[in-house]
Amino acid sequence: MDFSSKLLENAVNEVSRLPGIGKRTALRLVLYLLKQPKENTKYLVEALTHLRKDVKSCEKCHNISDTELCDICSNPKRNGEIVCVVEDIRDVMAIENTAQYRGLYHVLGGKISPIEGIGPQNLQIGSLVEKVKNGEVKELIFALSSTMEGDTTNFYIYKQIEKYGVTTSTIARGISVGDELEYADEVTLGRSIVNRIPFEQSIKG
Amino acid sequence: MDFSSKLLENAVNEVSRLPGIGKRTALRLVLYLLKQPKENTKYLVEALTHLRKDVKSCEKCHNISDTELCDICSNPKRNGEIVCVVEDIRDVMAIENTAQYRGLYHVLGGKISPIEGIGPQNLQIGSLVEKVKNGEVKELIFALSSTMEGDTTNFYIYKQIEKYGVTTSTIARGISVGDELEYADEVTLGRSIVNRIPFEQSIKG
Ligand SMILES: [Zn+2]
Ligand SMILES: [Zn+2]
Repeated sequence: MDFSSKLLENAVNEVSRLPGIGKRTALRLVLYLLKQPKENTKYLVEALTHLRKDVKSCEKCHNISDTELCDICSNPKRNGEIVCVVEDIRDVMAIENTAQYRGLYHVLGGKISPIEGIGPQNLQIGSLVEKVKNGEVKELIFALSSTMEGDTTNFYIYKQIEKYGVTTSTIARGISVGDELEYADEVTLGRSIVNRIPFEQSIKG
Repeated sequence: MDFSSKLLENAVNEVSRLPGIGKRTALRLVLYLLKQPKENTKYLVEALTHLRKDVKSCEKCHNISDTELCDICSNPKRNGEIVCVVEDIRDVMAIENTAQYRGLYHVLGGKISPIEGIGPQNLQIGSLVEKVKNGEVKELIFALSSTMEGDTTNFYIYKQIEKYGVTTSTIARGISVGDELEYADEVTLGRSIVNRIPFEQSIKG
Protein backbone atom coordinates (compact mmCIF):
# COMPACT_ATOMS: atom_id res chain seq x y z
CA MET A 1 0.00 0.00 0.00
CA ASP A 2 1.36 3.39 -1.10
CA PHE A 3 0.21 6.23 1.10
CA SER A 4 0.12 9.89 0.11
CA SER A 5 0.65 10.84 3.78
CA LYS A 6 3.08 9.55 6.41
CA LEU A 7 0.60 10.48 9.14
CA LEU A 8 -2.04 8.35 7.45
CA GLU A 9 0.37 5.48 6.90
CA ASN A 10 1.44 5.52 10.54
CA ALA A 11 -2.16 5.52 11.81
CA VAL A 12 -3.12 2.66 9.48
CA ASN A 13 -0.08 0.65 10.61
CA GLU A 14 -0.93 1.09 14.28
CA VAL A 15 -4.62 0.21 13.83
CA SER A 16 -3.74 -2.85 11.76
CA ARG A 17 -1.69 -4.24 14.67
CA LEU A 18 -4.99 -5.01 16.38
CA PRO A 19 -6.02 -8.67 16.03
CA GLY A 20 -8.25 -9.45 13.06
CA ILE A 21 -7.80 -5.96 11.53
CA GLY A 22 -6.02 -6.01 8.16
CA LYS A 23 -4.50 -3.03 6.38
CA ARG A 24 -7.62 -2.48 4.29
CA THR A 25 -9.96 -2.46 7.28
CA ALA A 26 -7.56 -0.21 9.18
CA LEU A 27 -7.57 2.26 6.29
CA ARG A 28 -11.37 2.22 6.21
CA LEU A 29 -11.58 2.90 9.96
CA VAL A 30 -9.00 5.68 9.84
CA LEU A 31 -10.66 7.40 6.85
CA TYR A 32 -13.95 7.17 8.72
CA LEU A 33 -12.41 9.01 11.67
CA LEU A 34 -11.10 11.69 9.30
CA LYS A 35 -14.62 12.28 7.97
CA GLN A 36 -16.11 12.56 11.45
CA PRO A 37 -15.80 15.65 13.70
CA LYS A 38 -12.42 15.91 15.46
CA GLU A 39 -14.14 15.32 18.83
CA ASN A 40 -14.89 11.71 17.90
CA THR A 41 -11.19 10.86 17.56
CA LYS A 42 -10.54 12.78 20.78
CA TYR A 43 -13.14 10.78 22.73
CA LEU A 44 -11.81 7.49 21.36
CA VAL A 45 -8.22 8.37 22.16
CA GLU A 46 -9.07 9.59 25.67
CA ALA A 47 -11.13 6.50 26.49
CA LEU A 48 -8.27 4.20 25.46
CA THR A 49 -5.67 6.29 27.29
CA HIS A 50 -7.64 6.41 30.55
CA LEU A 51 -8.43 2.73 30.41
CA ARG A 52 -4.82 1.67 29.84
CA LYS A 53 -3.57 4.06 32.50
CA ASP A 54 -6.11 3.66 35.30
CA VAL A 55 -7.86 0.31 35.02
CA LYS A 56 -7.11 -2.17 37.77
CA SER A 57 -7.24 -5.88 38.22
CA CYS A 58 -9.31 -6.83 41.30
CA GLU A 59 -6.80 -7.99 43.88
CA LYS A 60 -9.06 -10.84 44.96
CA CYS A 61 -10.52 -12.28 41.74
CA HIS A 62 -8.41 -10.56 39.00
CA ASN A 63 -11.53 -9.28 37.28
CA ILE A 64 -11.11 -5.91 35.54
CA SER A 65 -12.15 -3.18 37.94
CA ASP A 66 -11.92 0.57 38.57
CA THR A 67 -11.21 -0.08 42.28
CA GLU A 68 -8.85 -2.35 44.24
CA LEU A 69 -11.69 -4.76 44.97
CA CYS A 70 -14.27 -5.28 42.20
CA ASP A 71 -18.02 -4.73 42.66
CA ILE A 72 -18.65 -8.45 42.84
CA CYS A 73 -16.00 -9.23 45.48
CA SER A 74 -17.07 -6.22 47.56
CA ASN A 75 -20.78 -7.08 47.45
CA PRO A 76 -21.80 -8.49 50.88
CA LYS A 77 -24.75 -10.30 49.31
CA ARG A 78 -22.50 -12.56 47.26
CA ASN A 79 -21.55 -15.95 48.67
CA GLY A 80 -17.79 -15.90 49.18
CA GLU A 81 -17.60 -19.63 49.78
CA ILE A 82 -18.34 -20.49 46.16
CA VAL A 83 -15.79 -19.52 43.53
CA CYS A 84 -16.33 -19.91 39.81
CA VAL A 85 -13.06 -20.31 37.90
CA VAL A 86 -13.08 -18.68 34.44
CA GLU A 87 -10.55 -17.89 31.75
CA ASP A 88 -11.43 -14.33 30.97
CA ILE A 89 -13.47 -11.36 32.13
CA ARG A 90 -15.78 -11.94 29.17
CA ASP A 91 -16.84 -15.16 30.90
CA VAL A 92 -17.61 -13.22 34.09
CA MET A 93 -19.76 -10.88 32.01
CA ALA A 94 -21.52 -13.79 30.31
CA ILE A 95 -22.30 -15.58 33.61
CA GLU A 96 -23.36 -12.36 35.38
CA ASN A 97 -25.71 -11.76 32.50
CA THR A 98 -27.61 -14.97 33.31
CA ALA A 99 -28.43 -13.60 36.82
CA GLN A 100 -28.25 -17.25 38.04
CA TYR A 101 -25.06 -17.17 40.07
CA ARG A 102 -24.46 -15.49 43.43
CA GLY A 103 -20.94 -16.67 44.30
CA LEU A 104 -17.61 -15.06 43.44
CA TYR A 105 -15.22 -15.57 40.53
CA HIS A 106 -11.57 -16.23 39.93
CA VAL A 107 -10.25 -15.02 36.57
CA LEU A 108 -7.27 -17.08 35.41
CA GLY A 109 -6.37 -14.82 32.49
CA GLY A 110 -6.26 -17.67 29.99
CA LYS A 111 -5.80 -21.42 29.93
CA ILE A 112 -2.77 -23.66 29.80
CA SER A 113 -1.69 -23.95 26.18
CA PRO A 114 1.76 -25.35 25.37
CA ILE A 115 1.28 -24.37 21.70
CA GLU A 116 0.80 -20.71 22.60
CA GLY A 117 3.53 -20.93 25.23
CA ILE A 118 1.12 -20.39 28.14
CA GLY A 119 2.07 -22.39 31.21
CA PRO A 120 0.52 -22.48 34.73
CA GLN A 121 2.98 -19.78 35.83
CA ASN A 122 1.47 -17.34 33.29
CA LEU A 123 -1.99 -17.70 34.83
CA GLN A 124 -3.54 -16.67 38.16
CA ILE A 125 -3.39 -20.20 39.56
CA GLY A 126 -1.17 -19.59 42.61
CA SER A 127 -3.58 -17.15 44.20
CA LEU A 128 -6.47 -19.56 43.60
CA VAL A 129 -4.67 -22.43 45.32
CA GLU A 130 -3.88 -20.04 48.17
CA LYS A 131 -7.58 -19.19 48.65
CA VAL A 132 -8.47 -22.87 48.80
CA LYS A 133 -5.61 -23.61 51.19
CA ASN A 134 -6.75 -20.80 53.52
CA GLY A 135 -10.14 -22.47 53.79
CA GLU A 136 -12.02 -19.44 52.42
CA VAL A 137 -13.53 -21.53 49.65
CA LYS A 138 -15.98 -24.41 50.09
CA GLU A 139 -16.73 -25.04 46.44
CA LEU A 140 -14.85 -24.42 43.21
CA ILE A 141 -16.84 -24.39 39.98
CA PHE A 142 -14.75 -24.93 36.88
CA ALA A 143 -16.28 -22.90 34.07
CA LEU A 144 -13.54 -23.01 31.46
CA SER A 145 -14.51 -23.70 27.88
CA SER A 146 -14.70 -27.41 27.16
CA THR A 147 -11.70 -27.63 24.87
CA MET A 148 -8.54 -29.64 25.38
CA GLU A 149 -6.77 -26.62 26.91
CA GLY A 150 -9.73 -25.99 29.21
CA ASP A 151 -9.74 -29.62 30.38
CA THR A 152 -5.97 -29.56 30.91
CA THR A 153 -6.23 -26.39 33.00
CA ASN A 154 -9.11 -27.79 35.09
CA PHE A 155 -7.16 -30.94 35.76
CA TYR A 156 -3.96 -29.11 36.64
CA ILE A 157 -5.80 -26.97 39.21
CA TYR A 158 -7.71 -29.96 40.52
CA LYS A 159 -4.44 -31.80 41.22
CA GLN A 160 -3.17 -28.79 43.20
CA ILE A 161 -6.24 -28.45 45.42
CA GLU A 162 -7.73 -31.93 45.87
CA LYS A 163 -5.77 -32.50 49.07
CA TYR A 164 -7.60 -29.59 50.76
CA GLY A 165 -10.95 -31.37 50.50
CA VAL A 166 -12.79 -28.58 48.69
CA THR A 167 -15.91 -29.49 46.70
CA THR A 168 -15.28 -29.18 42.96
CA SER A 169 -17.76 -29.08 40.13
CA THR A 170 -17.83 -28.21 36.46
CA ILE A 171 -20.67 -26.42 34.78
CA ALA A 172 -23.13 -28.81 33.16
CA ARG A 173 -22.28 -29.41 29.54
CA GLY A 174 -25.47 -28.04 28.15
CA ILE A 175 -23.03 -25.99 26.12
CA SER A 176 -21.84 -28.02 23.19
CA VAL A 177 -18.32 -29.40 23.59
CA GLY A 178 -15.71 -27.20 21.91
CA ASP A 179 -17.82 -24.06 22.13
CA GLU A 180 -16.46 -20.90 23.66
CA LEU A 181 -18.33 -19.99 26.82
CA GLU A 182 -18.86 -16.37 25.95
CA TYR A 183 -20.87 -17.24 22.82
CA ALA A 184 -23.34 -19.47 24.67
CA ASP A 185 -26.88 -18.14 24.98
CA GLU A 186 -27.98 -16.93 28.43
CA VAL A 187 -30.50 -19.68 29.09
CA THR A 188 -28.08 -22.50 28.31
CA LEU A 189 -25.31 -20.89 30.29
CA GLY A 190 -27.56 -20.15 33.29
CA ARG A 191 -28.79 -23.73 33.30
CA SER A 192 -25.22 -25.11 33.10
CA ILE A 193 -24.32 -23.21 36.24
CA VAL A 194 -27.38 -24.42 38.16
CA ASN A 195 -26.90 -28.03 37.00
CA ARG A 196 -23.20 -28.20 37.69
CA ILE A 197 -21.79 -31.63 38.37
CA PRO A 198 -18.98 -32.83 40.64
CA PHE A 199 -15.63 -32.50 38.88
CA GLU A 200 -14.65 -36.11 39.63
CA GLN A 201 -17.74 -37.25 37.76
CA SER A 202 -16.86 -35.11 34.77
CA ILE A 203 -13.38 -36.60 34.34
CA LYS A 204 -14.75 -40.14 34.47
CA GLY A 205 -16.63 -39.09 31.31
CA MET B 1 -23.47 -5.94 28.24
CA ASP B 2 -22.69 -5.46 31.95
CA PHE B 3 -19.20 -4.16 32.58
CA SER B 4 -17.26 -4.49 35.81
CA SER B 5 -15.41 -1.26 34.99
CA LYS B 6 -16.66 2.12 33.75
CA LEU B 7 -13.29 2.73 32.09
CA LEU B 8 -13.65 -0.51 30.16
CA GLU B 9 -17.26 0.23 29.26
CA ASN B 10 -16.36 3.67 27.99
CA ALA B 11 -13.48 2.37 25.86
CA VAL B 12 -15.67 -0.39 24.38
CA ASN B 13 -18.41 2.12 23.59
CA GLU B 14 -16.02 4.45 21.78
CA VAL B 15 -14.39 1.65 19.78
CA SER B 16 -17.79 0.23 18.81
CA ARG B 17 -18.73 3.57 17.22
CA LEU B 18 -16.35 2.69 14.40
CA PRO B 19 -18.16 1.30 11.33
CA GLY B 20 -18.47 -2.49 11.23
CA ILE B 21 -17.20 -2.91 14.81
CA GLY B 22 -19.84 -4.35 17.16
CA LYS B 23 -19.70 -4.36 20.96
CA ARG B 24 -18.24 -7.86 21.05
CA THR B 25 -15.43 -7.07 18.62
CA ALA B 26 -14.75 -3.80 20.45
CA LEU B 27 -14.42 -5.70 23.74
CA ARG B 28 -12.03 -8.18 22.12
CA LEU B 29 -9.86 -5.36 20.74
CA VAL B 30 -9.81 -3.45 24.02
CA LEU B 31 -8.94 -6.55 26.07
CA TYR B 32 -6.16 -7.24 23.60
CA LEU B 33 -4.72 -3.77 24.23
CA LEU B 34 -4.89 -4.41 27.98
CA LYS B 35 -2.83 -7.58 27.57
CA GLN B 36 -0.19 -5.81 25.48
CA PRO B 37 2.52 -3.50 26.86
CA LYS B 38 1.27 0.02 27.65
CA GLU B 39 3.45 1.42 24.84
CA ASN B 40 1.26 -0.24 22.20
CA THR B 41 -1.80 1.74 23.30
CA LYS B 42 0.36 4.85 23.48
CA TYR B 43 1.61 4.44 19.90
CA LEU B 44 -1.91 3.81 18.62
CA VAL B 45 -3.32 6.82 20.43
CA GLU B 46 -0.49 9.10 19.30
CA ALA B 47 -0.78 8.02 15.66
CA LEU B 48 -4.53 8.75 15.63
CA THR B 49 -4.10 12.06 17.45
CA HIS B 50 -1.36 13.32 15.12
CA LEU B 51 -3.26 12.23 12.05
CA ARG B 52 -6.50 13.93 13.07
CA LYS B 53 -4.66 17.06 14.13
CA ASP B 54 -2.08 17.56 11.38
CA VAL B 55 -3.21 15.81 8.22
CA LYS B 56 -4.13 18.08 5.34
CA SER B 57 -6.22 17.88 2.24
CA CYS B 58 -4.22 18.81 -0.88
CA GLU B 59 -5.49 22.24 -1.89
CA LYS B 60 -5.39 21.28 -5.57
CA CYS B 61 -6.73 17.71 -5.74
CA HIS B 62 -8.14 17.14 -2.20
CA ASN B 63 -6.04 14.02 -1.75
CA ILE B 64 -4.88 13.38 1.82
CA SER B 65 -1.46 14.91 2.29
CA ASP B 66 1.05 16.03 4.93
CA THR B 67 1.72 19.22 2.95
CA GLU B 68 -0.43 21.93 1.30
CA LEU B 69 0.18 20.41 -2.11
CA CYS B 70 0.34 16.61 -2.30
CA ASP B 71 3.29 14.66 -3.73
CA ILE B 72 1.40 13.95 -6.92
CA CYS B 73 0.32 17.54 -7.62
CA SER B 74 3.79 18.86 -6.81
CA ASN B 75 5.59 16.32 -9.02
CA PRO B 76 6.79 18.16 -12.19
CA LYS B 77 6.88 14.85 -14.11
CA ARG B 78 3.12 14.41 -13.84
CA ASN B 79 0.94 15.67 -16.71
CA GLY B 80 -1.23 18.43 -15.26
CA GLU B 81 -3.49 18.53 -18.30
CA ILE B 82 -5.08 15.18 -17.54
CA VAL B 83 -7.20 14.87 -14.41
CA CYS B 84 -8.68 11.63 -13.16
CA VAL B 85 -11.85 12.16 -11.10
CA VAL B 86 -12.24 9.69 -8.21
CA GLU B 87 -14.50 9.32 -5.20
CA ASP B 88 -11.99 8.61 -2.53
CA ILE B 89 -8.30 8.61 -1.68
CA ARG B 90 -8.42 4.80 -1.73
CA ASP B 91 -9.06 5.05 -5.45
CA VAL B 92 -5.98 7.27 -5.85
CA MET B 93 -3.98 4.62 -4.00
CA ALA B 94 -5.42 1.84 -6.17
CA ILE B 95 -4.68 3.66 -9.46
CA GLU B 96 -1.19 4.76 -8.33
CA ASN B 97 -0.49 1.15 -7.51
CA THR B 98 -0.97 0.17 -11.16
CA ALA B 99 1.89 2.54 -12.19
CA GLN B 100 -0.05 3.12 -15.47
CA TYR B 101 -1.20 6.68 -14.99
CA ARG B 102 0.91 9.86 -15.08
CA GLY B 103 -1.75 12.59 -14.86
CA LEU B 104 -3.23 14.23 -11.78
CA TYR B 105 -6.32 13.43 -9.71
CA HIS B 106 -9.35 15.17 -8.35
CA VAL B 107 -10.84 13.56 -5.23
CA LEU B 108 -14.56 14.30 -4.92
CA GLY B 109 -14.93 12.90 -1.41
CA GLY B 110 -17.87 10.66 -2.34
CA LYS B 111 -20.57 10.46 -4.96
CA ILE B 112 -24.02 11.96 -5.28
CA SER B 113 -26.43 9.81 -3.28
CA PRO B 114 -29.89 11.18 -2.46
CA ILE B 115 -30.51 8.18 -0.15
CA GLU B 116 -27.49 9.04 1.98
CA GLY B 117 -28.29 12.75 1.72
CA ILE B 118 -25.16 13.53 -0.31
CA GLY B 119 -25.75 16.24 -2.90
CA PRO B 120 -23.31 17.96 -5.31
CA GLN B 121 -22.73 20.71 -2.72
CA ASN B 122 -21.26 18.09 -0.30
CA LEU B 123 -18.61 17.07 -2.83
CA GLN B 124 -15.55 18.80 -4.32
CA ILE B 125 -17.32 19.52 -7.60
CA GLY B 126 -17.09 23.32 -7.64
CA SER B 127 -13.28 23.35 -7.60
CA LEU B 128 -13.21 20.76 -10.39
CA VAL B 129 -15.49 22.85 -12.62
CA GLU B 130 -13.27 25.84 -11.84
CA LYS B 131 -10.14 23.99 -13.03
CA VAL B 132 -11.85 23.10 -16.29
CA LYS B 133 -13.17 26.63 -16.76
CA ASN B 134 -9.66 28.06 -16.25
CA GLY B 135 -8.43 25.94 -19.13
CA GLU B 136 -5.85 24.08 -16.99
CA VAL B 137 -7.37 20.73 -17.91
CA LYS B 138 -7.43 19.19 -21.37
CA GLU B 139 -8.90 15.82 -20.42
CA LEU B 140 -11.08 14.61 -17.56
CA ILE B 141 -11.13 10.88 -16.87
CA PHE B 142 -14.13 9.74 -14.86
CA ALA B 143 -13.03 6.86 -12.64
CA LEU B 144 -15.96 6.57 -10.28
CA SER B 145 -17.30 3.11 -9.50
CA SER B 146 -19.84 1.99 -12.06
CA THR B 147 -22.88 2.08 -9.81
CA MET B 148 -25.99 4.21 -10.21
CA GLU B 149 -24.55 6.85 -7.88
CA GLY B 150 -21.28 6.84 -9.80
CA ASP B 151 -23.08 7.29 -13.11
CA THR B 152 -25.26 10.08 -11.68
CA THR B 153 -22.18 11.91 -10.41
CA ASN B 154 -20.35 11.53 -13.73
CA PHE B 155 -23.35 12.87 -15.58
CA TYR B 156 -23.85 15.79 -13.21
CA ILE B 157 -20.22 16.88 -13.62
CA TYR B 158 -20.34 16.32 -17.37
CA LYS B 159 -23.32 18.67 -17.66
CA GLN B 160 -21.40 21.36 -15.78
CA ILE B 161 -18.26 21.18 -17.93
CA GLU B 162 -19.35 20.16 -21.44
CA LYS B 163 -19.62 23.78 -22.58
CA TYR B 164 -15.87 24.29 -21.97
CA GLY B 165 -14.97 21.78 -24.68
CA VAL B 166 -12.75 19.57 -22.49
CA THR B 167 -12.16 15.97 -23.57
CA THR B 168 -13.94 13.54 -21.26
CA SER B 169 -13.48 9.83 -20.91
CA THR B 170 -14.42 7.07 -18.50
CA ILE B 171 -12.15 4.21 -17.56
CA ALA B 172 -12.78 1.13 -19.69
CA ARG B 173 -15.26 -1.17 -18.01
CA GLY B 174 -12.93 -4.09 -17.69
CA ILE B 175 -14.03 -3.86 -14.10
CA SER B 176 -17.34 -5.60 -13.71
CA VAL B 177 -20.32 -3.27 -13.41
CA GLY B 178 -21.32 -2.66 -9.80
CA ASP B 179 -17.85 -3.41 -8.43
CA GLU B 180 -16.07 -0.98 -6.15
CA LEU B 181 -12.95 0.38 -7.80
CA GLU B 182 -10.66 -0.18 -4.85
CA TYR B 183 -11.23 -3.95 -4.92
CA ALA B 184 -10.27 -4.35 -8.57
CA ASP B 185 -7.01 -6.15 -9.25
CA GLU B 186 -4.08 -4.05 -10.47
CA VAL B 187 -3.92 -5.45 -13.97
CA THR B 188 -7.62 -4.89 -14.69
CA LEU B 189 -7.54 -1.45 -13.21
CA GLY B 190 -4.34 -0.46 -15.05
CA ARG B 191 -5.85 -1.66 -18.33
CA SER B 192 -9.10 0.25 -17.74
CA ILE B 193 -7.16 3.46 -17.40
CA VAL B 194 -5.14 2.86 -20.55
CA ASN B 195 -8.25 1.83 -22.54
CA ARG B 196 -10.46 4.65 -21.39
CA ILE B 197 -13.27 5.62 -23.72
CA PRO B 198 -14.89 9.00 -24.49
CA PHE B 199 -17.57 9.78 -21.94
CA GLU B 200 -20.18 10.54 -24.61
CA GLN B 201 -19.70 7.02 -25.93
CA SER B 202 -20.21 5.54 -22.47
CA ILE B 203 -23.57 7.19 -21.87
CA LYS B 204 -24.89 6.04 -25.24
CA GLY B 205 -24.41 2.52 -23.77
ZN1 LIG C 1 -13.09 -9.22 42.39
ZN1 LIG D 1 -2.84 17.00 -4.86
